[in-house]
Amino acid sequence: MARPSLREKIIDAALECFHEQGFLGCSVQDITDAAGAPKGSFYNHFKTKEALALEVLQRYVDAVRVGMLFEGDRPPLERLRAHFEYLIERNKDLDFARGCMIANFTSEMADHYPDMRTALDHAMTRWSTAITSLLRQAQIDGKLSQAKDPERLARFMICAWQGTLMRARIAKIHQPFDDFFALIFEDLLA
Amino acid sequence: MARPSLREKIIDAALECFHEQGFLGCSVQDITDAAGAPKGSFYNHFKTKEALALEVLQRYVDAVRVGMLFEGDRPPLERLRAHFEYLIERNKDLDFARGCMIANFTSEMADHYPDMRTALDHAMTRWSTAITSLLRQAQIDGKLSQAKDPERLARFMICAWQGTLMRARIAKIHQPFDDFFALIFEDLLA
Repeated sequence: MARPSLREKIIDAALECFHEQGFLGCSVQDITDAAGAPKGSFYNHFKTKEALALEVLQRYVDAVRVGMLFEGDRPPLERLRAHFEYLIERNKDLDFARGCMIANFTSEMADHYPDMRTALDHAMTRWSTAITSLLRQAQIDGKLSQAKDPERLARFMICAWQGTLMRARIAKIHQPFDDFFALIFEDLLA
Repeated sequence: MARPSLREKIIDAALECFHEQGFLGCSVQDITDAAGAPKGSFYNHFKTKEALALEVLQRYVDAVRVGMLFEGDRPPLERLRAHFEYLIERNKDLDFARGCMIANFTSEMADHYPDMRTALDHAMTRWSTAITSLLRQAQIDGKLSQAKDPERLARFMICAWQGTLMRARIAKIHQPFDDFFALIFEDLLA
C-alpha cells in the first residue's frame, strides 16, 4: 500500500500542471517531477493519467466552492452574486489565465474519454442544481418572479459563465465579467 | 515556391485534425499524413505548427459564416436566430462533438501563444461587432427596446453561446441550445 501523502502530492501537482498546461500539455513525468515523486511511483497510485485527471477534476470542483452557495445568512441572490465574485477574484489573481478546468477538460477530453465526459456532466449538473435551489428559495422569498424557470436559469447561467471566463482569458480584461453581472443579475434575475 | 494546392491540402487536413484531436492532440506528422503530403514539405509552407493553427482558425471563423448575418432580406433578429440555428445544425451533424475551435484553441493555446490569443480576440470581436450592428438595426426597426445595450448584449450572447456549445458537448443533448434560445431570444432580446 503506497503512502497516502505521496498520492496527495501527485494530485496537488497535477492540479497545477493540468490547469496551467492542459491534460495533453504535461506528461506523467512533468507531474511526478513537480510532486517530487519518482516517476515509477505514479502507477502505484493511478491506473492511468486519465484516472488522475478524474481525481483532479473532483478536487478542482470542490475548490469552486459550490458549498459557499449555502453558507451564511445572506439572501440567496446575494450568496449567488458572492459566489461569482469569488470566482472572478480567483481568476484575476491568475491574471485571467488558466480558465476553468471543466472547460479545459471538455475541450481536450470530452470527445475521447467517456469517463471524463460523465464526470464533467456531473460537475456541471451538481453546480446548476445548487444554483437552482438558491433561485427557488429566492422565489419563495419573493425576490425572484414566479414566472422565471429556476432550472433553466441555473443551467444557462453556468454556461454563460463558462463563455465569460473564456472571453476574459482571451482579452485579459474585466469587461466580460461586467457583462455577465449586468445581464444575469440586473436583467434575467431582476 | 511551393505548390498552393499542397498548402491548401495541409490547411484542410489540419482543420479536421485540430478540431477532432486538438492542437496538442495531433502532430505535424498526423496532419501531413492526413493531407497526403510528405512530412518534410510542411516547413516549406508553414514556419511553425502555431502558424498553421492561425491559418486554420481564420478558415474556421470564415466557416462560422458571420457573413450570413448580413445576407437576405429577413429582419435582423430573424437573421440572428437563423445564424445560431445554422451553428446548432452543424454541431448536431457532428453528434455534439468537437465544440467550437475558438474555445478549444483558447483552452489549449491562449495562455502560451500570444499571436493565437490576439487572433482569438479578433475572431470574437469580429463576431460580436457583427451581431451588435444587427441589434442596432433591430432597434432602428423598432424590434428591440432602445433601453437595451446592443454591444453588451452581443458580447454576452457569444460568450453564452460558447458555454452552451460546451455544455451540449458534455451531455450530448439539445437542452442547452433550447435554454440559449429561450433566454436570449424570448427574454433578453424580447
